[in-house]
Amino acid sequence: MITHFPPPANIKTPPLSYATRVGDLLFVSGIPGFDDNGQLSDDFATQFGFVAATIKRILKDAGTDIAHLVKVNVLLTRAADVAPMNALYADAFGPPPYPARTTCVIAQLPDPKMLIEIECVAAIPSR
Amino acid sequence: MITHFPPPANIKTPPLSYATRVGDLLFVSGIPGFDDNGQLSDDFATQFGFVAATIKRILKDAGTDIAHLVKVNVLLTRAADVAPMNALYADAFGPPPYPARTTCVIAQLPDPKMLIEIECVAAIPSR
Amino acid sequence: MITHFPPPANIKTPPLSYATRVGDLLFVSGIPGFDDNGQLSDDFATQFGFVAATIKRILKDAGTDIAHLVKVNVLLTRAADVAPMNALYADAFGPPPYPARTTCVIAQLPDPKMLIEIECVAAIPSR
Repeated sequence: MITHFPPPANIKTPPLSYATRVGDLLFVSGIPGFDDNGQLSDDFATQFGFVAATIKRILKDAGTDIAHLVKVNVLLTRAADVAPMNALYADAFGPPPYPARTTCVIAQLPDPKMLIEIECVAAIPSR
Repeated sequence: MITHFPPPANIKTPPLSYATRVGDLLFVSGIPGFDDNGQLSDDFATQFGFVAATIKRILKDAGTDIAHLVKVNVLLTRAADVAPMNALYADAFGPPPYPARTTCVIAQLPDPKMLIEIECVAAIPSR
Repeated sequence: MITHFPPPANIKTPPLSYATRVGDLLFVSGIPGFDDNGQLSDDFATQFGFVAATIKRILKDAGTDIAHLVKVNVLLTRAADVAPMNALYADAFGPPPYPARTTCVIAQLPDPKMLIEIECVAAIPSR
């Protein structure tokens, strides 16, 4: 009834799936900006790029894509990253219409090097 | 498959929809307390009032209402606003039974003048 | 159309349900670590234990269980609790595969004594 999509085997992650499918909805975990070796850049745009690429890969693995995003939550650790995030987001998650979204600046993500995580809910289209 | 409800044309917003519908569920973005001219009062109760009014308008536009709220997340930037928020909320989102809810005090919302945002999920009743 | 699951009668709670069911989905509020008398221990592991036990009881009351969790959000107020939380979580929410999950360290929960809340979405299996 629930399909679990595990995190990449080469990245050390806490006890979670990267995404779960129930019915026609896909719930995606807060995805950090790990590069392909599980490292986190000090650069915000670099972390954002890996977050967006990872989410697109998860959506594809689950049979959907960015156009079927329903709701996105962006978690930042620095208020100064809000404006750059919006510029990067408009490009990576476009074209319009965009999904519903909430953006928060929080005290910290699980690893202090993480500057951003994005979690989302997507619809899965019928074949 | 997904219906997007755009933000008001006269308010400068980031790349998002105010809400999206998928199936019989409506996902509403974190809604700030903009007045009708897109301004933010310094007063918490005033911001709360505009948040509640905007959410009620979004729900109505999507064919549902406050009695069909399933889950609400309240994001505050000041711990001192928790008690006033609960009093305002009980009135604006009642009568009971209330939806499920989570309340967080976070470091900042996208605009430093924002004291509150509320995001929610609602059911859309069949015609 | 929406089924509301109220909080325990002996615990003073804000205007919310502990969970709501719509269709085959259950949305669970951010659940704090109240003991059976509505008190909060100063100990993180103790609060975590009551959170997990309360969520399991809510799931059971709604006709589901931990294996049907779809998405979990863990809200902490101290970054130092991330590692202990993951250890406790792996045990309480296992065995694998685990649900999708996001973990945030925020400024404060509604009561300053709260060290953790967990909110979640579960699927409800057909009878």
